[in-house]
Amino acid sequence: MQAGNDPLAQQMDAAMPDTHPFDLATALTATDTGVWRGAPAPDYANMVGSFGGATTATVLNAVLSDDRCQSDPVSMTINLLSAMGTGGFEVVSKLCRTGKYTQHWTLELVQDGNICAAATVVCGHRGDTFAYQPVTMPDVPPAEAAGMRDGRGPLKWLERYRFGFVSGGPDWTGKPKEQFGASRTEVWVGDNPPRPMDYLSLAALADSFFLRLLHVRGTMQPMGSVSITTHFLANRADIAAQGSAPVLGVADAMRFQGNFHDQQMQLWSTDGKVLATGTQLVWYRQ
Amino acid sequence: MQAGNDPLAQQMDAAMPDTHPFDLATALTATDTGVWRGAPAPDYANMVGSFGGATTATVLNAVLSDDRCQSDPVSMTINLLSAMGTGGFEVVSKLCRTGKYTQHWTLELVQDGNICAAATVVCGHRGDTFAYQPVTMPDVPPAEAAGMRDGRGPLKWLERYRFGFVSGGPDWTGKPKEQFGASRTEVWVGDNPPRPMDYLSLAALADSFFLRLLHVRGTMQPMGSVSITTHFLANRADIAAQGSAPVLGVADAMRFQGNFHDQQMQLWSTDGKVLATGTQLVWYRQ
Repeated sequence: MQAGNDPLAQQMDAAMPDTHPFDLATALTATDTGVWRGAPAPDYANMVGSFGGATTATVLNAVLSDDRCQSDPVSMTINLLSAMGTGGFEVVSKLCRTGKYTQHWTLELVQDGNICAAATVVCGHRGDTFAYQPVTMPDVPPAEAAGMRDGRGPLKWLERYRFGFVSGGPDWTGKPKEQFGASRTEVWVGDNPPRPMDYLSLAALADSFFLRLLHVRGTMQPMGSVSITTHFLANRADIAAQGSAPVLGVADAMRFQGNFHDQQMQLWSTDGKVLATGTQLVWYRQ
Repeated sequence: MQAGNDPLAQQMDAAMPDTHPFDLATALTATDTGVWRGAPAPDYANMVGSFGGATTATVLNAVLSDDRCQSDPVSMTINLLSAMGTGGFEVVSKLCRTGKYTQHWTLELVQDGNICAAATVVCGHRGDTFAYQPVTMPDVPPAEAAGMRDGRGPLKWLERYRFGFVSGGPDWTGKPKEQFGASRTEVWVGDNPPRPMDYLSLAALADSFFLRLLHVRGTMQPMGSVSITTHFLANRADIAAQGSAPVLGVADAMRFQGNFHDQQMQLWSTDGKVLATGTQLVWYRQ
């Protein structure tokens, strides 16, 4: 654990030596109804600021830890407005509506007076209804056969995941490719060290893909997630059944044009259930 | 045009007799910076309240009509909290950040003190960058060959579109299907009467699909869009080139479970460009 120079992170590190880094990263302290205090986690540092998945999970945690929250998350969108600095931040939530079936929240993550992230979260009661999955899992080897490895690279947060690439693995050299690389990736991915899945880690896993531009062009350049939407289709039983086993992630893109590209993703359980689907919009400079 | 009993709608109807119903439906009047007044359009009435696409476009219009807005929309998420009544409403916007490349907005649509919709919009400068579309348009007959017909049905808004189903057309009988219907639909769709495309109508077209549950089960029951996310990948040249011709819409779902299902969509130009992609979460009762 690296608590860095942040007093809050150091304090939490000392208090919870056996706590998983993800739980430290997403920890919040309530200071008032709908007002939470947190700090960026050095363990999930990105090129600039924090890994978007950790930020997403932290903001979601402000909903799920709230006494007013009556049900599990079903949908979340987070917009990343500006990179966070290393200091503490506040997450401020507004419960916009509690209906019979759903609760609607809007949230802001604010640091030094700047809104770094703006989000909406929908929670919903999941009943025993019609159930159907028209799609089947991609035909891939199991995680054990995919050569799971600790993430490595210039970004600290990569070390917090294990990856087993099935197709569309990273092969960028820093030089433009003669032929465009595949935009699609299939990858087994799990927390490192392993951690029993919950909605928070599912939200973070949904952003654990490399940006498609990297795969297609092969060059590292200024780029970043602008808006991330995740639909949580897993119920509690699905999540409990998955435990700490890696999930299969699939990501792809449909169009790169004029500084932006889209990026779709799906997360599958070991036994072929769709746990989450989503899409993000990515900005790139040139 | 039906202005109904709403004074504002009647007034606009009288003032703009040749105005397209979509422009009437999405019209807003500024009452202060970031505060807009509008009214639900009877022409786009839904089972309950208004067609989500019209609501989406109206909220987006509060951004695009704002003097502070510096660029075109690239991403939008709108959460539909409760059905609107027939009276007037306010759209209140907050400009959260203006950066070099993007502007971030959050918005609420409020009627009689209730938040009916909460949204985030990202606008972005589109430059002359790397461009690539890894996907090709589905191999379908052109719109002229698809038998474009005026929308009909129990929902008023259907009359405001023309549909030419290529696959996965509506065939629900009100009785549960012996075999589940296809979750995927390919359909040419355009405004009725035709109207030159802009970002507002593109945002509405993104929600012009029947909910996947209807296609799969064949029964009409309580259901509704909860959260709609659209990424606008079309630049102004793409939109100008499309004009008032129908676009090809593709929609599908991956999992129905515990009162919710997801629904992905893509909109394609006549010449095979991806104009928009997106996803929504749908609630259903049983």
